[in-house]
Amino acid sequence: MPEEIFADPSDTRAEILAATYRALCEHGYADLTISVIGEEFEKSPSLVYRHYDSKDDLVLSCLEYMLETLLTQFERETVTDPRARLEELAAWSLGEIPDDRREYFAVLSELRTLAVQDDAYRAHFTESDQLFAEYVADLIRMGIEMGEFQECDADRLARFLVSSVWGGVLRRSTCEPGSWLADLHREQVALLEERVYRS
Amino acid sequence: MPEEIFADPSDTRAEILAATYRALCEHGYADLTISVIGEEFEKSPSLVYRHYDSKDDLVLSCLEYMLETLLTQFERETVTDPRARLEELAAWSLGEIPDDRREYFAVLSELRTLAVQDDAYRAHFTESDQLFAEYVADLIRMGIEMGEFQECDADRLARFLVSSVWGGVLRRSTCEPGSWLADLHREQVALLEERVYRS
Repeated sequence: MPEEIFADPSDTRAEILAATYRALCEHGYADLTISVIGEEFEKSPSLVYRHYDSKDDLVLSCLEYMLETLLTQFERETVTDPRARLEELAAWSLGEIPDDRREYFAVLSELRTLAVQDDAYRAHFTESDQLFAEYVADLIRMGIEMGEFQECDADRLARFLVSSVWGGVLRRSTCEPGSWLADLHREQVALLEERVYRS
Repeated sequence: MPEEIFADPSDTRAEILAATYRALCEHGYADLTISVIGEEFEKSPSLVYRHYDSKDDLVLSCLEYMLETLLTQFERETVTDPRARLEELAAWSLGEIPDDRREYFAVLSELRTLAVQDDAYRAHFTESDQLFAEYVADLIRMGIEMGEFQECDADRLARFLVSSVWGGVLRRSTCEPGSWLADLHREQVALLEERVYRS
């Protein structure tokens, strides 16, 4: 899970990116500076300046590192029950979640809208949405092959599922909490039941 | 439609807020200053300073004004075909749209993530999501009363529809264009067909 990616950084690069992530959680993007990241970094702050040119260089590298690590986790996992995996993903994003994941979604939401103005962030989020949709589409195709899911357009449904999760993730980071979030989770599961699983 | 709200401002307040909106479209939130807004304003820039304390005071007033105007439009409209109205809303947000609406969504997406850090923006978007969900739920209840829609939990479905639209609006403002957007639109309509309309 992404919030654990930085729990045990394995080398200097990972340590610098972990410091970037902690600084983002604490200060938000607008108040982030290389010097703030340097303070979070446990070794010499000058190492940060040596490896990275700018705040955005660091933040984009941090996003890429999180995406790579998550994809490696996906590749290594053995899914035997695609229905359970889809529901796990719905609960992971829209259910009751721990504070560190809440922070992770808040950081992602903030960084995502940088893509409105900035091509490099836009390229990152275009790629990550596409990779997540492919992962979900593969789960749907697996369920179809196992005879457990309906024949359906797996890619189209996966793209929609990723979007509706993003809607929920954005809203949970930008709205007061309320019963609406449990409703989203329930409707996301109902959508899987109606459109994906065999009834 | 919101992009037309500022087409013909009726008083000084509306003119100042229209200038704020134009400045947001042109410069984005990060590069926005009261002085940039003053330049967009066709009368004396000092009027802007006289009425508003800060950039956020202006931006929040602009958001409120857009929401109020939209709600007034909703109140005045006579809906006779709730199904057609729901599909109009899906096309309005996820279909092929004019450039000025694209700009409007980009501005909203940027401002929305200010709510990650800022309580005043959070209060605004909590309220606007709730009001939109109530509007959509009323359309669903109308269709149920007319015998055209299934018996369903209108509030829960409406909350989900608003979220999935927000997912699409955010993604269209932060991803490269692609066939995925047409897929979202198609799936949003398919969701209405499966979960809302009577088959």
